[in-house]
Order: sequence, then C-alpha cells, then structure tokens
Amino acid sequence: MAKQKFSSESLTTMTEMVFPNDTNNLGNLMGGNLLRLMDICGAIAAQKHSSRVVVTASVDNVAFKDPIPIGSVVTLRAFVTRAFNSSMEVYIEVHAENIPAGERVMTNRAFYTFVAVDQTGRPIDVPAAVPQTEEEKQFYEAALRRRQLRLVLAGRMQPSEATELAKLFE
Amino acid sequence: MAKQKFSSESLTTMTEMVFPNDTNNLGNLMGGNLLRLMDICGAIAAQKHSSRVVVTASVDNVAFKDPIPIGSVVTLRAFVTRAFNSSMEVYIEVHAENIPAGERVMTNRAFYTFVAVDQTGRPIDVPAAVPQTEEEKQFYEAALRRRQLRLVLAGRMQPSEATELAKLFE
Amino acid sequence: MAKQKFSSESLTTMTEMVFPNDTNNLGNLMGGNLLRLMDICGAIAAQKHSSRVVVTASVDNVAFKDPIPIGSVVTLRAFVTRAFNSSMEVYIEVHAENIPAGERVMTNRAFYTFVAVDQTGRPIDVPAAVPQTEEEKQFYEAALRRRQLRLVLAGRMQPSEATELAKLFE
Amino acid sequence: MAKQKFSSESLTTMTEMVFPNDTNNLGNLMGGNLLRLMDICGAIAAQKHSSRVVVTASVDNVAFKDPIPIGSVVTLRAFVTRAFNSSMEVYIEVHAENIPAGERVMTNRAFYTFVAVDQTGRPIDVPAAVPQTEEEKQFYEAALRRRQLRLVLAGRMQPSEATELAKLFE
Amino acid sequence: MAKQKFSSESLTTMTEMVFPNDTNNLGNLMGGNLLRLMDICGAIAAQKHSSRVVVTASVDNVAFKDPIPIGSVVTLRAFVTRAFNSSMEVYIEVHAENIPAGERVMTNRAFYTFVAVDQTGRPIDVPAAVPQTEEEKQFYEAALRRRQLRLVLAGRMQPSEATELAKLFE
Amino acid sequence: MAKQKFSSESLTTMTEMVFPNDTNNLGNLMGGNLLRLMDICGAIAAQKHSSRVVVTASVDNVAFKDPIPIGSVVTLRAFVTRAFNSSMEVYIEVHAENIPAGERVMTNRAFYTFVAVDQTGRPIDVPAAVPQTEEEKQFYEAALRRRQLRLVLAGRMQPSEATELAKLFE
Repeated sequence: MAKQKFSSESLTTMTEMVFPNDTNNLGNLMGGNLLRLMDICGAIAAQKHSSRVVVTASVDNVAFKDPIPIGSVVTLRAFVTRAFNSSMEVYIEVHAENIPAGERVMTNRAFYTFVAVDQTGRPIDVPAAVPQTEEEKQFYEAALRRRQLRLVLAGRMQPSEATELAKLFE
Repeated sequence: MAKQKFSSESLTTMTEMVFPNDTNNLGNLMGGNLLRLMDICGAIAAQKHSSRVVVTASVDNVAFKDPIPIGSVVTLRAFVTRAFNSSMEVYIEVHAENIPAGERVMTNRAFYTFVAVDQTGRPIDVPAAVPQTEEEKQFYEAALRRRQLRLVLAGRMQPSEATELAKLFE
Repeated sequence: MAKQKFSSESLTTMTEMVFPNDTNNLGNLMGGNLLRLMDICGAIAAQKHSSRVVVTASVDNVAFKDPIPIGSVVTLRAFVTRAFNSSMEVYIEVHAENIPAGERVMTNRAFYTFVAVDQTGRPIDVPAAVPQTEEEKQFYEAALRRRQLRLVLAGRMQPSEATELAKLFE
Repeated sequence: MAKQKFSSESLTTMTEMVFPNDTNNLGNLMGGNLLRLMDICGAIAAQKHSSRVVVTASVDNVAFKDPIPIGSVVTLRAFVTRAFNSSMEVYIEVHAENIPAGERVMTNRAFYTFVAVDQTGRPIDVPAAVPQTEEEKQFYEAALRRRQLRLVLAGRMQPSEATELAKLFE
Repeated sequence: MAKQKFSSESLTTMTEMVFPNDTNNLGNLMGGNLLRLMDICGAIAAQKHSSRVVVTASVDNVAFKDPIPIGSVVTLRAFVTRAFNSSMEVYIEVHAENIPAGERVMTNRAFYTFVAVDQTGRPIDVPAAVPQTEEEKQFYEAALRRRQLRLVLAGRMQPSEATELAKLFE
Repeated sequence: MAKQKFSSESLTTMTEMVFPNDTNNLGNLMGGNLLRLMDICGAIAAQKHSSRVVVTASVDNVAFKDPIPIGSVVTLRAFVTRAFNSSMEVYIEVHAENIPAGERVMTNRAFYTFVAVDQTGRPIDVPAAVPQTEEEKQFYEAALRRRQLRLVLAGRMQPSEATELAKLFE
C-alpha cells in the first residue's frame, strides 16, 4: 500500500440532473436528496484514496441557502483533505446551474468522514493525504479543528481537551 | 395562527424497510440514504408544527456508528424542539431492528433545521414550540447553544458572540 | 417462542410523502402505490408479531374513495388482529393529510394476510394474537368471517361450509 | 363516443422483469409490488375501453400462492369484463416464468375496478363492454355477483339486497 | 436444446406508462429511458428464444423523432430476427399512445443484439431463428447486412470484406 | 448568442456507482441502464454548448464488451464534437473501475445527437463547435461521415449521395 497520496488523486466530479421526484412542493431539490448525492460522491473519493471499501462515519454541519429548481444541473466536486489512521475527511462542494439562464452558484460545502474497512467490515489504515494547492493546504490545516469538534459533539472528547477548537473562542 | 404549540403535536413516526438498492457493497444502508429519510421525517414534523410548506435549512453533525443491514426495519421519531421566528429545530432519532433476531439499537440522533415559507417561498413566522416532558425541556434548553454553533459554522456569528457555546470550553 | 402476544405489540406507524412519481395524470396517488405501501406496513406489523420473516398471502377487497393529491402526507397504522396457525390477519388504516390546508381524512381500511416462514420458506406457527381494546376485540371477532370469505373466494372452502359468512345473508 | 366496445379491444399485455429492489428478504417479489403492477396494467386496459383518464376504485380479494423469484419474467394480461355506468371491472391475470428453467405458472388472478373521469375528475359514462369468447362471457355473467360483494363489503348495499350473491350460500 | 425456433416464439409485448420522473424539462420521455425499456424488452425476447440468461452486446443506430409526453402509454413489441452462433438480433418496435386523444404513432424502431451465456458468463450457442411472415423474412434477409455494419463500426471487420453492406453504395 | 464555442467548454464528467437494481441476473450493469446514463451525460454537454433545452435525436451504434459488476464506479466523459445548425453530435466515453481491485477499463464509446429547442419545442440554431486538441480534431473531421451514415440509416439520404461514407468501401 502507498504510504501517502496527494489529495488531488482522489478528486471526483459528479454531475446530476434534478428530476421531478427529487423535489419538494415548491419544485426545488430536497435537502435530503442532496445529502445523499454528497454521500455517494464523497464515498467514491474516499475509495480512490484508500483503494478500499468505505463506510460513512459522519457528516459535519451542512447549511442549505439557495433553492435548486427542477431541471438544474448539479455538479459535485470531492477530494480527501486529510487522513487519520483508518478515517478520511472528504471536502465536498456543490454547484447548481440553470444552463439556459446562464446562472451558476455554489450552493453547498460539506465535510463528510469515511472509514476504510476490510472484507469483514473492520477498520483498516489508509495512506496519509498530502495537500499541494493552497486550497488543499488550508483544508488540511483546519481538519484537526473540525475533527475535535466532531469528537466533542459525539461525546468522545472533553471540550477541555479540544485545544485546537478552543482557540476559536479565545 | 396558533401563537404556540406543544412539541408533542409535531411528533412524527416513520417506519421503513431497508431494500437492496439502499445498501452499499457490504449490504448495509448507505449513510446518505439515512440522511434522506431523516430529512423527509423531519420535514413532516416541521410541517405539522407550522402548518406550512417547509424547506431544509441545515443539518447538524450526524455520526454513523452501527451498520444497518439489508432487511432491517428502520424507525424514525421526530418532533420540533424549539422555534426561532420562521425556523424550527427538529430532533430526529433513528432505531434499527433486526426483528427475527430480536435486536434493536438506537443508531442515530440528529438535529435538522427547517424554515416555513409562504407560497412565494419567503420565510414566514411559526408558533413557539412549548416543551412538556423532561426530554423535550432538555432539548429546548440546549437548542440555543446548537443554534449558536450553527451560526458560527456558517460564518454568520463571531465565535466571541457565541456566549452559550463558549461556556462549553471554559 | 411466546404463546401469545397482544395486538398492540405489533402496532406499526408509517408516514410517507406523496412524490410526483407516485401520482397519475390528475396528480393523485395511484391506487397501486397505496396497495404497495400498505403491504410494507402490514408486513412489518406481522414481523413484529411473529419475530419471523413473513410473506404476503392475500389482500382483501380495498376500496379507494378519496383522491390523495401530490404533496400530501400519508399515515398508515397497522396491527395484527388475529393469528391462525402460521397466518396473521393485519388491519391497515390509511389517513391522508394536506397539512397546510388543515385537512385530514381516513381514506382506506384494508385487511392483509401474511404467513410466517422459516429460513427455507416453509410456514411456521406464530403466537396467538390477544385483543385488548374494544376496536381490537371487534376486529378479532369478525376475523373468522373474513377468513371464510377469503377461503370461499380462493375456492378452498364450499360456501355451504362458511357458516359464519352465511349469517350475513340470512 | 362508441355505445359499446368488445372486451378484446381493451386487451393489454405487460411484461416485466423482477429486479432486486422489488423483492423481500427471501429474494421473491413482494406482494405489494405485484398489486402495483396489476393496477398499472388494469388502468391501461380501462383507458383503452373508455378513452378517458381513469382512477382506481377498488381491488377485489387477491391471493398470493407461488413465490416469484428475482430474475423471473412476469406477464400480465388485462381486459375489461363489464362496464357499469362510469365504472369498469377489469380482469387481470399474472404468469411468472423462469425462462432458463422452462417453468411458467399462473400465479394470480384479480379483479380491479376503475372509474372514468373527465378533466375535473368527475365520473363520466363509458361504453358497454361486449363479451365474445367463452372466457369473456363467463366473466361478464359473474361480474354482477362480484359487484354486489364489493358493494356489501363497502357498506353500500345490504346483504339482504345482494340477491346474486346470496345464491352462493343457498 | 431445440435446433431451431420460429421468430414468433420469442414475441414479447411490453406496455408502460410514462411517469413524471421519466421525462425531461419539456415533459417528454427522455431518449435514454426509452433505450432502457427497449433493452429490457429485447432481453426478454432473446431469453425466450435461447432459454438462457442473455447479455446486451450492442444497439444499432436509433433515431428519436416524435416526443412522447408524460401520461402516454408506450407499447414495445420485440422478437428475434436471426441468430448467429451465440448471438441474437432482436427487432424492437415502439408505439406511443395518447389514449384520451385517440392518437397512436410508431415512434421508434431498433435492433439490439444479445448474447446467450452459461452460468459462468461464457457465450453458448442458441437455436436458429426461422422466419415465417413476410415481415420476419425481410428482417431475416437484411440481418446479414446489419451485422456487417456492426462489425465494421466496431472495427472487427474491414469495410472491403463487408460485401453485403457495400452493395448499398454501388 | 456566441457564434462559436470550443468543444472543451461543453466537457461534462459524471461519476456513478452501480447499485443492485441496475444489474442483471449475473450481477452486471444492464446495457440499457448505461445507455440511459450516457443520454443524461450527453444531454448536459449539449446543454452547456447550446445554453438551451435539448432533446435526444439519435444514438449511434453502441457495443458492450466488458461486464461492469455491481459496486463498480462508472465514469462518463462527454463533449460536443461538431454542431450542424440546431443539432450537436456528442462523444461519450465510459470507464468502469473496480477501485479496491485497482482495475480500470474503457468499456464504451458512443455518439449521441441532440437538438436544441426553444420554449415551444422547435429547433433553434446553436454555436459552431471548434476543436482544439488532436482528439477533438479527429472527431470533428469524422463527424460528417457519421452524420451521413445516420441519415442513410434513417432513410433520409440516398446511399449514393453519401460521398463521405462511400469512401470507406472503395
């Protein structure tokens, strides 16, 4: 197994049309359907990084600001930002386009965490993720803080131990 | 419009079977599909509270611990914990059962936020949510802290202003 | 295995939204889709009663009176009314709500029969179902008559033997 | 509008493969999915007879005897047996084939009733259905008895008035 | 195994409704969905001819002329035109009906090729296909020319060897 | 409207997982499902080139060589090769990966044609497509020959007029 891999090696692009059944009463994509698409796109990126079957471990806070109407084209871009033993944080960015109208907006940004598992479903170590671009380096740096927030929210770390996180509130 | 409503009036129960197409390579429910089910269940609870069309505004951090194998029965329970103007925080709890094996575990807890909108899609005020049980009261109290975390993570509040949240790190 | 179980122990609640693809040309839920939802809800109730894998044995006459428009919330309530060796009769009741309009009607009542099977697909006995409420007792009593009608309609009982059923026509 | 039409003019054949998501834990087609296919096939037959949009009014008792495993080919055959004002009774017959194994069985027979409606959803009269073959004539004759059973079960006819039906129990 | 079979023995009829999720922004059936339906219908015809599991080997040029609006009834008719060792050419014809409007048009004609395989997925010989009607005989005759075109387009035959095909351009 | 656009401006990448319901009895992606994915990917590329709603006009011969097993990741790459008035030829290339096994093969190449339409569904002219890379230039050059083949196969051009095409057989 490779000891390390560049973040860019896991880059995954997914393009989807918004069909009628994906929408709510206002004709806009339901938030839950977008969360499902992000999960699939992120899982493929984590598979590429680890060359393993992966399972979703968590999704961080996701906000939905802009409605995405039926007929839009949704583009998802995902890559692994940082690996911790068997787990990988994946950054996922969503753009929605109304192509005939010439409109394109970034609608969502999210961080999902996936765990690589072996055939029996047990966690297994993955290569380190090495950032290269400025964007990748920033995500890599802040990954530790997000990881502490995840652990605190899951009740698996005391807030007092979350030293990276606490800096935010000083 | 009612000025206030009890949390219990929005209680929504959803029961689903896990079908083959909902599962990953290990035969377990994909995380993204569960996020989609929680979104639908939470949206119905928010509709019941507000008597309005609602749209998903955000989902808080969700962790996935236990695999939910194909053939499981998944039960979701959702109710509005607290309302803030046009937005409602909804608590959603997921249990998975393997009925023939007599196994039942709580697999997930999540908080989604929904916004009530009028026919044109603009936010509109909703009744206050009044907690009655001990569980409802605890969720109601802590809702302010979760709201501050959401606003900080969305870049809409300075960490220094998040007084409720900062207490965690003292 | 328990020798008997209360009807209420199998109570199953299912809540669903009506999506575009579930509807006919008039924008109303197709009858066949509702029959499918009732089958899933009833099967879960029968699983809860028997702690077994179950298969659908029959559905009794179902009438569709009220259209259920797209965007409605459909709530199904099911429980085992009576058990006969390996088979269980399940009562399923459907309500449809247009929440923003404040309308809620009971649209359907149906009786499905399920058979509990072992790993090889062979029928296996289930606990007796014990009614407690007035509603449960009435369903329990009349189950024999419905069973005779089912057997007559399936050509497995002579009308002259269907003594319970014949009383209707005296 | 034609005053009458032959039953054979509404004949509709539907062929479907059984896909993984249509099956239960034993890998067999779920009863509810077959009820949904029969509803679609019957609705098309009723559309052909009436040249109208149709809605499902009822399904008579349906029994499920033979499991239909994944990968089977399911063939449905439907035609209008008799018309009553705006409603049409449709006979639907289901065969399941395991083609590589050379096995073919008739698994189900059902009667659905559909109502023809105008653009506003109100019932509208349809042509009479004229039987020609022996099979069609038998279904035509017995349609009255089935109609009385439907009305009795729906509480819209007193058993004592169901003269055709009562003959069964003499 | 039969040495030969009549084309008519593989005749398969499939009837489908066009549902909202199958349509594009103009409310018409998407071409790709029709290609998928033709693949299923053709595969069943090839299964009937070969009594084997079959896999899709190719689809010839398909043109889409007439829009098929939501709510239409689509009827597919397929049969094996000619067999070559383990492969079968299947002719598939599509009609679309707007029943209430009394409109019916043939919208598509296509030739798919399927290969019969054994349990391990290896090709296995199939019976010869014997044409009887005038239509079947014409398809049988021209099958050789279409096969040469397929092989040339796949780069598996030199145009100079495609003697049947070259006649077209003389 | 732009008079011309580079082929690369319409480049569209789509990544999909193969789910159970997409597969045949051998557990491999059904050909018809891949044709459907190619149609969606190609339509998005044609939308990007034309900034219009587009409809599928035709698919050229597609061959299926390699089975794509369940759990594979399928990547589609599409771009407009050449425009003719209101129609656009789109090249679509499919790769399938078994990521844990480190296997990746190009499984399919196809040419679809789409027509840009206005709000009423009538064809409307699109920008010329300008090739830049060597691959794009080769596709651009050969597009005329493929167009003639399409027209001949659709009976809209005499083989004797198809001068580009006839060169193949000299």
